[in-house]
Parts: sequence; C-alpha cells; structure tokens
Amino acid sequence: MSRAELPAIVGVNPETVNAFVLEQWPDRPTRSRCTEVSGRHALAVVDVHDIEIRPGGFISGPTQFAAADLALWYACFGAIGLEAMALTSELSIRFVRPATGRVLQARADLNSVGSRTIVGSVHIWTENPDRPTAIAQGTYVAPRS
Amino acid sequence: MSRAELPAIVGVNPETVNAFVLEQWPDRPTRSRCTEVSGRHALAVVDVHDIEIRPGGFISGPTQFAAADLALWYACFGAIGLEAMALTSELSIRFVRPATGRVLQARADLNSVGSRTIVGSVHIWTENPDRPTAIAQGTYVAPRS
Amino acid sequence: MSRAELPAIVGVNPETVNAFVLEQWPDRPTRSRCTEVSGRHALAVVDVHDIEIRPGGFISGPTQFAAADLALWYACFGAIGLEAMALTSELSIRFVRPATGRVLQARADLNSVGSRTIVGSVHIWTENPDRPTAIAQGTYVAPRS
Amino acid sequence: MSRAELPAIVGVNPETVNAFVLEQWPDRPTRSRCTEVSGRHALAVVDVHDIEIRPGGFISGPTQFAAADLALWYACFGAIGLEAMALTSELSIRFVRPATGRVLQARADLNSVGSRTIVGSVHIWTENPDRPTAIAQGTYVAPRS
Repeated sequence: MSRAELPAIVGVNPETVNAFVLEQWPDRPTRSRCTEVSGRHALAVVDVHDIEIRPGGFISGPTQFAAADLALWYACFGAIGLEAMALTSELSIRFVRPATGRVLQARADLNSVGSRTIVGSVHIWTENPDRPTAIAQGTYVAPRS
Repeated sequence: MSRAELPAIVGVNPETVNAFVLEQWPDRPTRSRCTEVSGRHALAVVDVHDIEIRPGGFISGPTQFAAADLALWYACFGAIGLEAMALTSELSIRFVRPATGRVLQARADLNSVGSRTIVGSVHIWTENPDRPTAIAQGTYVAPRS
Repeated sequence: MSRAELPAIVGVNPETVNAFVLEQWPDRPTRSRCTEVSGRHALAVVDVHDIEIRPGGFISGPTQFAAADLALWYACFGAIGLEAMALTSELSIRFVRPATGRVLQARADLNSVGSRTIVGSVHIWTENPDRPTAIAQGTYVAPRS
Repeated sequence: MSRAELPAIVGVNPETVNAFVLEQWPDRPTRSRCTEVSGRHALAVVDVHDIEIRPGGFISGPTQFAAADLALWYACFGAIGLEAMALTSELSIRFVRPATGRVLQARADLNSVGSRTIVGSVHIWTENPDRPTAIAQGTYVAPRS
C-alpha cells in the first residue's frame, strides 16, 4: 500500500539528506544515515551505542523511537524538500519483539502528504524486516510558511 | 512486510467468521462482513449508515475507528481461532483524508502474534487502497486462559 | 494540570453546545449531551444503546471511542467557538477496565490550544471517575480559514 | 483524577529507585533522577545534553519520549516493586509546545495497575506544569512470572 516509486523532490537523495542532517545537527545523539529516500518513503540505518542497550541486553525503547522519528523525518525530506523542516506533531510506537544486535533499520512509508501535515507508518527491525521489533505511526507538521 | 500468505487457523474462513460474529453479537451497530482472512491479515467491508455521516458529508471518525477495530478482531480470529475472543487493549487512529461514500474497507495486517498480545496495523479506504482515509495501529490481548 | 477555570468563548455553554450539535447532526448515532464546558475542558454524558454492548456484557470499544471524540469536540467548542468546527486529526485510546452499565461519562481536558491544532486528554468512566474504563489523547485541527 | 496519595510498595522511594536504576543501567544515555514516587505516580527530572537540542534550539522529541518512558518506569516501581521490571509495550506522545531550556520534568500518573498491564499518562514540561511541552500515554507489561 505504499507508493515508494514516486520520485523524491528534485535534489533529494540519500547523499544530500545525510549531508543536510550532518550540517544542521552535527552532534546529534543518534548515529544514523539515510540509505533510501523517495517521494513517499525512506530507510534509516541506526548504529546503536553501548549505552542504549537496556538491562536485559535489548536495544532500548527510546532508541527505537528515535529511529522511527528519523525515518519519518527523512521521508518528509523526500516528499517536501530539505528546506521545509517538518516537526513531529505526534508519534505512537508499539514494541512487538525484543530487539537484539547493534544496528536498527527503520523504514517509513508516508500515508498522506498534505500542505499542512504528513502522516506515515514505520517498521523497525534488526535482522528480518518481516519480524519487526517495533512499529510506529506519526504525524509531522510543516512549519508555518 | 505482511505475511498474509500464512494460512488461518483450521476452520477459520470468511464464512465461519461472519457466522460466529453474527451469533455472538446479532444486533451489533456496525453492518460489516469479513471478506478475507488468513493467519496474518483480514479484510472487513463496512456498510455505512446515514446517521454515521458527520456534518460536512463525510463518514464519521468513530465509524472508521469501528471498522479498524473489526478488521483487527477478524485478523485475530485467523491467527488464534474463533474461541479465543481477543479484547482491544489500545488502538490509535489517524484520519488522513476525507472519507466519502457509503462503504468502508479496512485491511488489518498483524505485525506480531504472541501468546498474550497481538499487534496489528490497519489501512482504511473507500475507493482506492493507495489513498487511505485513515490508518491505525493497535494491540489486542488474549483473555486469560 | 488542567485549567478548567478558563471561561468558554462567549456564548458557549452546555445549552448552546447541545442545541448546535442537534442542529448540525440531528440523527447522530451517539445519544449524548454536554453537561460542562469551559475554555479548557468539557464533560460529555453518553447513553449507551443495547446494541453497543459487546459479547460479554461490556460497553464496546468503538462506543467509548465515540464518547472520547465527543468530549474533545465539545471542549474545542469551548476553546475556539461553535462556528470553528474542529476535525479529529488523530486519537489514541487505551481500554483499562471493563465498562459495565449504560451511561458513559467522558471528561476532556485540553493540553494546548493553538491556532492550527488543539490537543487534549480524556478520561472515560461509568461510575467512578477515579477508576476510568478508558483513557485517550488526541489532536484536532481547525478547518482552514 | 490521580490517586497519588496511595503509598508506594514498601521499600520504594526516590532514593531506592535511583540506586536501583543506577545499578541496573549505570551508563544509560539519559541523566535523570526520580524525585517523587507513590503507588500511583512518579516524577522524573531529566538533565538535557547539548546534543539533544535539535536544530532550532529546542529539546528533541526522542529526548522527551525518553523522559516520558522513564517517568512511567519509575511509577511502575512504585506500583509493583523494583524487582518486577516492567517493559514498555506501547507509548504515544504528542508534542504540544516548543521545549526550551535544559531540564525536563515528567510526571506519570497511573490510570490502572493490573496483574499483567499498567497504563499511565504523562505530562512533560520545562518551566510550568500547566504548560506542558508534551503529553503521553502508554502501556507497560509485567514480565511473565
């Protein structure tokens, strides 16, 4: 039900997304990169720090939330461009399996792109995209122009 | 990312789901039927009443919520059987486009099926599944055995 | 943490809210009334139909969702006026106790009132407000002016 | 609507919560402390790192999510004890005002405490509890005993 084949806004690709984010937020806590972006989806790959492993040995919830938020942010770049920095309005996340390992992948698919809000769904996994560790949905708002 | 090809629990198909629901809840407010069910998904078709059209001419939010809840309920039948009546623990819904018309379709895909909880995602639309009117995610709990 | 003492917009009180809703949506499925409204909260009382009792004898989830949605809608009237019909953008609900009886009460407290979005929290109960049957939070958008 | 006056489980107070969390997760990314805990609520105070300030100068969304998650985790300790480490099942958050400053406060109030799940609501603010920067609701599950 995604339409990931829609091209990204002209000039938006993984390289320009990563360069833009690095410039805007050089010291951000999450070490991540965009590896795919179209006009309706994006893929984020997140390297998990030691300190983000919670008691019990699993990747912490807030780390997975950050990955979901990043993937949706990247997807917004593909849909409306790099300059229009969308802000998270709300995001809900469900943790469905223990997350082991040190690399998270988060794929965001946009369900609607409006002039004021963008809504998308995210799957997060470590090894097998068919066995997500968390799923999320959220709303982004375009800054008032 | 769904695995809709997993067969439903033996004996669960659209006919047995519809018969079971009719028997359990003969006068329920939502006129709906299950048209597809597997071990990991279900499709619900809902006929919208006149009184469920909100001011402005659109299908009301609670009607779409009911459709999401039904589709997930049907999918739980496919995953764990008719007897194990799962209860909704939480459900969040985002309304992304105006819903016109008188028939809603809701497709639920299960993201995880555990012994205690089942988590799934729902797309709701009226005419075009690629242009959902609402999306939802929720958690169901199996009754204590 | 609510500020329910803030007066409602001039002319908005339970009587004008009920009259307005009846006029806008005379045949709506939920028989409810506003019994309190201020600039930051509202109380909705909902009479539950027989058909809204789900198998097991409890008030159905969608009925409780409708009550939450109504209470927030009423609260938006108190905050921004009757004419500015806010639309539900997203709403998440958690069912925390079985809901017995035939009358639901839903109290919405607004957490923020902006020019574009209104966010609020809802408690739903049947007999004891300290023992809610469901809790919810949601976002409403003002129609484009 | 909270019942914060219910005493915490014997032996659970801010000092024992902080000592327990430090022992379990010495290098966790969020520098926080529990300053209040009862059988139905907890207060978390979070020191925000420089790297958690997002472009624009505001405290990032994932940082606020982590604060909500911590406050609910602390409240679970008050309700069911330190040993029974509850896990986040789902959490939804709404960002309602820009969060400025370097200290977040998050207050969690539990709406229900069952044998299998705990549900609570959170308010997050920087300076004025009546003007939250984010609100959240979530569900925690007790580990299988």
